[in-house]
Amino acid sequence: MKNLFLGLFIFALLCSCTQQPDQKNVQQGDPLPSWNEGPSKQAIINFVKETTYSGSESFIPAKERIVVFDNDGTLWSEQPMYFQFIFAIDRIKQMAPQHPEWNEIQPFIAVLENNMETVKKSGIEGLLTLTMATHSGMSIEEFEKIVKEWINTARHPKTGKLYREMVFQPMLEVLDYLRATGFKTYIVSGGGIDFMRVLTEEVYGIPPEQVIGSYGKYKFEVKDGLTEIVKLPEIDFIDDKEGKPIAIHRFIGRRPVAAFGNSDGDLAMLKWTEAGAGTGLMVYIHHTDSDREWAYDRESHIGRLDKGLDEANEKGWIVVDMKSDWKYIYPHELSMDK
Amino acid sequence: MKNLFLGLFIFALLCSCTQQPDQKNVQQGDPLPSWNEGPSKQAIINFVKETTYSGSESFIPAKERIVVFDNDGTLWSEQPMYFQFIFAIDRIKQMAPQHPEWNEIQPFIAVLENNMETVKKSGIEGLLTLTMATHSGMSIEEFEKIVKEWINTARHPKTGKLYREMVFQPMLEVLDYLRATGFKTYIVSGGGIDFMRVLTEEVYGIPPEQVIGSYGKYKFEVKDGLTEIVKLPEIDFIDDKEGKPIAIHRFIGRRPVAAFGNSDGDLAMLKWTEAGAGTGLMVYIHHTDSDREWAYDRESHIGRLDKGLDEANEKGWIVVDMKSDWKYIYPHELSMDK
Repeated sequence: MKNLFLGLFIFALLCSCTQQPDQKNVQQGDPLPSWNEGPSKQAIINFVKETTYSGSESFIPAKERIVVFDNDGTLWSEQPMYFQFIFAIDRIKQMAPQHPEWNEIQPFIAVLENNMETVKKSGIEGLLTLTMATHSGMSIEEFEKIVKEWINTARHPKTGKLYREMVFQPMLEVLDYLRATGFKTYIVSGGGIDFMRVLTEEVYGIPPEQVIGSYGKYKFEVKDGLTEIVKLPEIDFIDDKEGKPIAIHRFIGRRPVAAFGNSDGDLAMLKWTEAGAGTGLMVYIHHTDSDREWAYDRESHIGRLDKGLDEANEKGWIVVDMKSDWKYIYPHELSMDK
Repeated sequence: MKNLFLGLFIFALLCSCTQQPDQKNVQQGDPLPSWNEGPSKQAIINFVKETTYSGSESFIPAKERIVVFDNDGTLWSEQPMYFQFIFAIDRIKQMAPQHPEWNEIQPFIAVLENNMETVKKSGIEGLLTLTMATHSGMSIEEFEKIVKEWINTARHPKTGKLYREMVFQPMLEVLDYLRATGFKTYIVSGGGIDFMRVLTEEVYGIPPEQVIGSYGKYKFEVKDGLTEIVKLPEIDFIDDKEGKPIAIHRFIGRRPVAAFGNSDGDLAMLKWTEAGAGTGLMVYIHHTDSDREWAYDRESHIGRLDKGLDEANEKGWIVVDMKSDWKYIYPHELSMDK
């Protein structure tokens, strides 16, 4: 009897020793539980299996497993307008008492009068004016602090949820699944790089050095022995459309093997990914669920998906139908369901 | 006797199990064998020990262990001029038959006549002209191929070695040591990002996504269904002086905890690193060995170390004396010594 226990004990020890602690391409159970069974889910799982199994013809070496994700509309919602722009509007209202001159200049007047139609009509130039006024003239640390406070308190007008809670549960699972199988997940978004980095690590598990976005110019200063990087009111780079593959090259220097987007702004990035040498995964998230989220594509001013949809259909890229492919949209639905 | 063996067997199993397989902060033997004993070597080892030991007051969480290295003069030699510039000169000569107009424009005439004094006198503008002429007008893949061929064949006029062999053995050991203890090593250099990335992974073990440098503008094109990123003859960003902390912020989004440089061009980066919250390591490589490498500092046109040397002395940063601190300079000396 004593020997039996001893034998079992040794056996247990041996088992615990032979188990690989760092075996990243083994997944227990369903890696994408918030996805309904169907071709979209299957395509993602097949891609991972084919490219990470060492005997596979489509095997991708670990260092080349770069996956890029658009943010607005791909990892979180973007309606009724980009959340970063809602932040800018909130900031204008907050800062207005210190800026009496805004009462006489458009599009500030429109913002302060809550006249969103006029704000939208001010076009790209108007939006940039509002963004510059709220995203510059301070150190990077001060800006981070302001965004952090907003992201932890501001609530969405339709859902009443914090904006940071309006991330897509099925995409969080894709991020986790890809990382667990040795992929490096990057954000490549038109959103501001300093804005996004405040939340990406906590919300998506994506560290700042893997977040690429639009950015303004900066100034490095040494004042009274203190060093500071100050945000200047001047755009340096817009990370959208053809800018996305360029930014990928500049920041990463490798071509991605998979790309997820939701609009025509992501088309160049998906094309660039597809044109790579090996197996690639190109995915469009199609907003089709007007009940649980929003439904929009070819005619939308925000997140327009028109040319991209044609190209995806033509080339057989994955088009995720949010309504039928996703069991849940937001993380809070999971706990409601339990 | 049988029980004794069994006991020893279980003991051995237990030992092998309790040993952490991923324990990155355990180093066997001397991690910096090409460094002579002294304050420089000791400071680097102390920094690593203090910041990676989990009970330490100066402990730095793994994700914040960002270390930045200048390239020219810090990781490899930079005399008689930057190696990338020698590449540009070689390319001008190679491309000259296709550019008869160069026979009538400076500084091309000077290059083709091997008149390096006139080339140097053409100043920054002249150097940029030569760089643009050789670093643009082709796809990123074509450029990579050209640099790869050069880096694997071109030899240094003084040493007769391939330029890629003129990397500093003691710095290769620092890179390995830091990575083995969980630090993420980045290059932050005035050199061209596309030029450096051709060699950094193979030579330094630094992947492209951890290489930051100067860069030009790019154009994304779709021609006959083929996608291409083309290098344009226009500078976008110079990663030098105050540009370095700005590039670090833009690309990494975290402040480094250690920085290695060799010239005044690295001073802003070292200051930015020093001003971080926790324990920092600021290191200047001082070129003091005219026999084995070169000796230059305050008066040099290339890699001038003047203000930086004053600041380092004032603040007690580490100033590595190449002559006395380094047992070997280049890797090939190691094999000669065996």
